[in-house]
Amino acid sequence: MADTGKKANRDLLSSEVKDYDIEQQYDIQSIVSEMANSGGFESRNLAYGVDILRSMISEQNCTKFLSFVGSLISTGTRGIIRDMLKKKMFDVIITTCGAIDHDIARTYDRYYAGDFRMNDGMLLENNIHRLGNVLVPMENYGPLIEEKVQKCLNDMYNEGMRDVATFEITSHIGSTLDESSFLYWAHKNKIPVIVPGIVDGAVGSQVWLFYQQHKDLKIDILKDQNKISDLVFEAKKSGAFMIGGGISKHHTLWWNQFRGGLDYAVYITTADEWDGSLSGALVAEAISWGKVTTKASQITIHGEASTLLPFIYAALRASTKNK
Amino acid sequence: MADTGKKANRDLLSSEVKDYDIEQQYDIQSIVSEMANSGGFESRNLAYGVDILRSMISEQNCTKFLSFVGSLISTGTRGIIRDMLKKKMFDVIITTCGAIDHDIARTYDRYYAGDFRMNDGMLLENNIHRLGNVLVPMENYGPLIEEKVQKCLNDMYNEGMRDVATFEITSHIGSTLDESSFLYWAHKNKIPVIVPGIVDGAVGSQVWLFYQQHKDLKIDILKDQNKISDLVFEAKKSGAFMIGGGISKHHTLWWNQFRGGLDYAVYITTADEWDGSLSGALVAEAISWGKVTTKASQITIHGEASTLLPFIYAALRASTKNK
Amino acid sequence: MADTGKKANRDLLSSEVKDYDIEQQYDIQSIVSEMANSGGFESRNLAYGVDILRSMISEQNCTKFLSFVGSLISTGTRGIIRDMLKKKMFDVIITTCGAIDHDIARTYDRYYAGDFRMNDGMLLENNIHRLGNVLVPMENYGPLIEEKVQKCLNDMYNEGMRDVATFEITSHIGSTLDESSFLYWAHKNKIPVIVPGIVDGAVGSQVWLFYQQHKDLKIDILKDQNKISDLVFEAKKSGAFMIGGGISKHHTLWWNQFRGGLDYAVYITTADEWDGSLSGALVAEAISWGKVTTKASQITIHGEASTLLPFIYAALRASTKNK
Amino acid sequence: MADTGKKANRDLLSSEVKDYDIEQQYDIQSIVSEMANSGGFESRNLAYGVDILRSMISEQNCTKFLSFVGSLISTGTRGIIRDMLKKKMFDVIITTCGAIDHDIARTYDRYYAGDFRMNDGMLLENNIHRLGNVLVPMENYGPLIEEKVQKCLNDMYNEGMRDVATFEITSHIGSTLDESSFLYWAHKNKIPVIVPGIVDGAVGSQVWLFYQQHKDLKIDILKDQNKISDLVFEAKKSGAFMIGGGISKHHTLWWNQFRGGLDYAVYITTADEWDGSLSGALVAEAISWGKVTTKASQITIHGEASTLLPFIYAALRASTKNK
Repeated sequence: MADTGKKANRDLLSSEVKDYDIEQQYDIQSIVSEMANSGGFESRNLAYGVDILRSMISEQNCTKFLSFVGSLISTGTRGIIRDMLKKKMFDVIITTCGAIDHDIARTYDRYYAGDFRMNDGMLLENNIHRLGNVLVPMENYGPLIEEKVQKCLNDMYNEGMRDVATFEITSHIGSTLDESSFLYWAHKNKIPVIVPGIVDGAVGSQVWLFYQQHKDLKIDILKDQNKISDLVFEAKKSGAFMIGGGISKHHTLWWNQFRGGLDYAVYITTADEWDGSLSGALVAEAISWGKVTTKASQITIHGEASTLLPFIYAALRASTKNK
Repeated sequence: MADTGKKANRDLLSSEVKDYDIEQQYDIQSIVSEMANSGGFESRNLAYGVDILRSMISEQNCTKFLSFVGSLISTGTRGIIRDMLKKKMFDVIITTCGAIDHDIARTYDRYYAGDFRMNDGMLLENNIHRLGNVLVPMENYGPLIEEKVQKCLNDMYNEGMRDVATFEITSHIGSTLDESSFLYWAHKNKIPVIVPGIVDGAVGSQVWLFYQQHKDLKIDILKDQNKISDLVFEAKKSGAFMIGGGISKHHTLWWNQFRGGLDYAVYITTADEWDGSLSGALVAEAISWGKVTTKASQITIHGEASTLLPFIYAALRASTKNK
Repeated sequence: MADTGKKANRDLLSSEVKDYDIEQQYDIQSIVSEMANSGGFESRNLAYGVDILRSMISEQNCTKFLSFVGSLISTGTRGIIRDMLKKKMFDVIITTCGAIDHDIARTYDRYYAGDFRMNDGMLLENNIHRLGNVLVPMENYGPLIEEKVQKCLNDMYNEGMRDVATFEITSHIGSTLDESSFLYWAHKNKIPVIVPGIVDGAVGSQVWLFYQQHKDLKIDILKDQNKISDLVFEAKKSGAFMIGGGISKHHTLWWNQFRGGLDYAVYITTADEWDGSLSGALVAEAISWGKVTTKASQITIHGEASTLLPFIYAALRASTKNK
Repeated sequence: MADTGKKANRDLLSSEVKDYDIEQQYDIQSIVSEMANSGGFESRNLAYGVDILRSMISEQNCTKFLSFVGSLISTGTRGIIRDMLKKKMFDVIITTCGAIDHDIARTYDRYYAGDFRMNDGMLLENNIHRLGNVLVPMENYGPLIEEKVQKCLNDMYNEGMRDVATFEITSHIGSTLDESSFLYWAHKNKIPVIVPGIVDGAVGSQVWLFYQQHKDLKIDILKDQNKISDLVFEAKKSGAFMIGGGISKHHTLWWNQFRGGLDYAVYITTADEWDGSLSGALVAEAISWGKVTTKASQITIHGEASTLLPFIYAALRASTKNK
């Protein structure tokens, strides 16, 4: 620890850590700007993520992917996803069946705040499902989704549809929902919502149930792949905002390998890298697979999406408004 | 801290914490037995998990699900999955496209040990993909899977198959592989391997590619649902060993709600509960959804599967052998 | 899933999940208000945490503890800690030696932004220490702290101090620093900074070094305990904002058991609960030890402090200003 | 994905991933051997960790540090720590006050298995403390530790001890305990147990209480530093097994910088790297600080210690026995 006269190589030291000075300005844009110079740890990644998203969204010749996990739609975060589609920030959505289920359920009825520690046997007896700290009244979920989706499928069937892609199902459902729904805005703004694992949830089970009676209505999952393929091969540039891991993240990355990789990529996750899981893998890993370009603007933000997304979205909106 | 004369209510204190005494016996069964009495923290869950699996596997009238994430098949853990199927420990597999991809690739060629810190741009230049700390030579993955799967699809097509379920694709592929493969043993032992999100990976993309030339070969994802439905509705009891989260875990839980819930459930995960994700949700949460019965033998083991599975499997085998 | 006519027990459903509507208002206070009604997942905890802190800080008869881990002081977050002390939001600080070390180093010289993936052997050759993604030039750390702290200790010694408490050392050091420093403001505002593990870091090693020459200068760690004891026993109410786990969190909780527990407690952590660690334990666990009262306003916020603290502090400031 | 003729650079591919074959051999040593060749993910690190520990322990000229967190001593893992000291595997212990507290309490009375979900208010009413999923009867903790430690301190005082180091306190306490205790074996085998944050726990509070009556009994924390200093400067080589993070990990690393760094280092942690915390930092980061040598045999094993330690210890013992 004694002074050895050794000096740090200045070539490696370019960007100085600056302390926050929130006393002067505490609007969201100023805070995010200060984060960029805060040195560490994830705050810097959040600031850079906002920056990448801002560039990506303003880039005309860029096909923009939004992927997210289903659980978020059971929370208030649904309002942010909805607004991002209302404002046409993205060109294509890749998500899970759960996201569709919750969007339908919450258009027609309510979910409630609960607690992670509630007794699940007690909740079952009280006809309440638990999703983390969110409570889902039984009648607002299964039976409601059944009624609404069977009606949709019946209408689609009567219109002559037979081999349906998931983006066709989600678009039709969206057309029946109201302005609170992200599927509504995706439908209205012609943004395809693709659900690669659609059988894994309530809507998927409803399609399967309908199919028991109408063996000629099938899910044509390859038609979805055609749709993504068209989007990917037409894209001059491509970018993705991936909220959470699993199949929605992977499918977004997967398809972008076929055009040489994403040019922009922002990923929010709580998952650990060290277990080798797809969800824990940094965006950077995708470079070795050609799914993200070597020169891409890309960042992984470690954090919980329901906490970070409101700030990220507000920062994006604030900067647009100021223009 | 002074003695107030207060005494703990003994009704709440039944199972005493006992220290390990590994000096005497350090075979795997003794260690797992000692874990059961170790008080905390996850060791106790591991011991209970082994106990549940042992009961479940020996239960004749129980339909047994095994679900796992794809990344594990890129590691040596593939050998354990394979052996569990070789020994017919499970009746149905639910997994991801990645698992299928890696099983094919590794039947024909090799993967290598790498490091989480390797530079991904450098790896790309050297034609190597990175999956955590596993290295995948480019030629052993995409082109190899393309060649083998196109051959399989062509054969299936020539045999007259048109609307194919994922369990049919995986069974056919399994029939072409060798004894190192888990798909081979699933095929040989007539254990269906269902891949609800099959389009999300290399095999899925190969089916899509084949379909470009043969528009009448389609994936009939609802046929898979029929298969699971039959299994679920015929089951007198059901149980699941779920290794990792995401779609394979959720689909296993999802279907078991239609028969009143799993009677046995063991789940291994690294995911956090507090972010509300499906992957982080304890098995107990599924009770409120009717996916696991209130009286089920069930446990969530927090830990990394590649580290825990060899010990769990060895403990299961050791106890069988001793019988 | 079919409609069974079962209805959820409304007694368990009080607080409805509301979607964000950030279009209208995206100032920090509005966002945090909306979080309170967002249902899940950690966003609700963040909103509640801000609410508790606001009540606690405005409570006159409450002794307020602030605890934090050292690594934060290597980042821009130091500016927020500093401002909280400048504004006298807290009455006593419990922290680690690392926090003191970084505060001294960064008063006199600079730290820089780096990357988690930098090669540590290379950095050593270039005389740079790495702390996560923060870079510490060698000469701005060890030798600088040595020079400054030896001078402080010499002055204290010459003033006749012999058995020194850690709060005396930190106060003296603070008196020599400038307005960028949190120790400076703690000193100026007579807020004791207590470091229960002071020997574990650069300042601690300097005291030890000084003691080699002056065997009569000793650290009197029990004098610190007297100081906390006085604060705790005089407190009509007590509250704590604990940023990160380890010894600083535990010592804060520990002492508050002797007055019947904290009345307010907000804890930010990334640690997992399931490993039984103190850092992962929810604040609620401390209730069973009498360290937090049964009726306390208390919350654990899972998330990364450098990302959340700027938003939390801005929300606290915004609400004060509006008053 | 089509075959481009590109081939991976074989220079980067040396160690092939091999599948487990547990059918033949499922003793603990065979499993750990297979882990070394399993490619990914943490299993490989565990195997390497066992290998490093084996080399370190058999190295005559190496001073061996063992550090661990306190919570482990509340579980059966205490038996493994005890046996490692009984077998003189380590030369010095660095730990927390909690470890000492639990060792004393559990020598004289019992802890019990509980559940993470128990209601803490209810437990308080029943005079039970909760530590994760371990239950601590109130009378077996505070009042018991008070009685035993006051007696120890009184004896030490009567023997004329005044300025006591923590290793002296722990040695004296150890002399009063039985063979179930790790402090007993540390005492018997003359292995110093150093507690840099001793004031932070029950024993620390007892010393403070004693000092209220006997102002001349003080803790001389710098005497501990002398002890470590002697060990470090005399060491030809040094190594450390660090179980869990926080002050015990940091203090072990910290002191080894003064002799040029650890030659062997194995660290078990559940903490995330991305938050910049000391607990989450890989051992590799310490290289940039000179706390671990550039050429050290070192590894970070991500996992939960109560689950991994029994297997690690059994593997170490098995290999010794086979010799």
